[in-house]
Amino acid sequence: MSTENPRAEERETRTAAPAPGLLPTLDAPAPERADAARNRRRILDAAARIVAERGPDAVTMNQVAHASGIGVGTVYRRFGDVSQLLWALLDDRERRFQEAYMSGPPPLGPGAPTAERLDAFLDALVDRVAEQREILLAAHSAAPRARYHSGAYRLMHTHVALLIGQLRPGADGALLAHLLLAPFSPDVMHHLAVEQELSGERLKAGVRELLTLRQGS
Amino acid sequence: MSTENPRAEERETRTAAPAPGLLPTLDAPAPERADAARNRRRILDAAARIVAERGPDAVTMNQVAHASGIGVGTVYRRFGDVSQLLWALLDDRERRFQEAYMSGPPPLGPGAPTAERLDAFLDALVDRVAEQREILLAAHSAAPRARYHSGAYRLMHTHVALLIGQLRPGADGALLAHLLLAPFSPDVMHHLAVEQELSGERLKAGVRELLTLRQGS
Repeated sequence: MSTENPRAEERETRTAAPAPGLLPTLDAPAPERADAARNRRRILDAAARIVAERGPDAVTMNQVAHASGIGVGTVYRRFGDVSQLLWALLDDRERRFQEAYMSGPPPLGPGAPTAERLDAFLDALVDRVAEQREILLAAHSAAPRARYHSGAYRLMHTHVALLIGQLRPGADGALLAHLLLAPFSPDVMHHLAVEQELSGERLKAGVRELLTLRQGS
Repeated sequence: MSTENPRAEERETRTAAPAPGLLPTLDAPAPERADAARNRRRILDAAARIVAERGPDAVTMNQVAHASGIGVGTVYRRFGDVSQLLWALLDDRERRFQEAYMSGPPPLGPGAPTAERLDAFLDALVDRVAEQREILLAAHSAAPRARYHSGAYRLMHTHVALLIGQLRPGADGALLAHLLLAPFSPDVMHHLAVEQELSGERLKAGVRELLTLRQGS
């Protein structure tokens, strides 16, 4: 393998191959040179388009190279293989989702009333799972019980538990956050969205309705 | 294999080996002779005790024969192997649970106000999953996405959707029932009860609290 810049190569290895089942948390990635970052973005965007159009099984390193206009050698050097590229795609999307709910604009980010922030989070989570449903499902099927130990799940859980604690002081926020996140498991969402053919809007409305089921009863 | 009664043998095969991932529904089993039914009950009770004391991995046909006082040849003839015996154990327990919530005494069965019946069902479901958690988890791990197509899940879903429809006319009962049953997936319950060490009472209180999270907010 040719290596123009050994230090850049080392960084790439660190960011390109998270352990399966353990999506990364908000830890900042090591800084990249501007052109390396640009290439990375082009490769990931091309892969995301292929996944959106034809599903994760259709992704090959050659197609990603062709669609991104970047040499196939560079694609292999940066991402190793298709499996690592798909992990990097999940990682990239998850990182942007985390930034949005931790520090983005309201109502998903800080600044909105707690009830609105929780609604915005649950709505965004429906979209988040829908956007990468097939990759998330494949990762989940490979290691079903890793979900609860992943950085992505833990950060979501902490966030939802804090919001519930603000919304209803004295509530069992830690437990309620687990119960509220359970339907967002990729296998449940696959059943609802693909097998039951329920739209994202209907899923969002249903999640809100669940939390008021006993109101007025 | 010796066969004293070919017709009884045929019935046994039908009831002892449900397809993996497809727990049976309320379809009545074929009638058994009184002594065959008594033996079946003794074998299942002995296996249930071994599972409760030492987990499903500890179950062997010899131990079940010894603990039930029934010849090991009869145990093999009735249940085939340990895997089928464990399925029969799930089947037996699920059937009693279904009878209780479909036609047993209130508040779990008919006759109580809808809100109380839903509470009673969710409480009973916490206990149901806890009682056979390890067998349910093993079955779920073997075929994670079979849950939503199993007779047991479908009957629970129909029941909960009907109760929700009575409780809140106009609610999206079919979707809400799926969302409400999601935390009862064996992998979620394993995480909460074993890894997080939450008690059954805390789980029951949390499920009720979830449905009132927005009340008064």
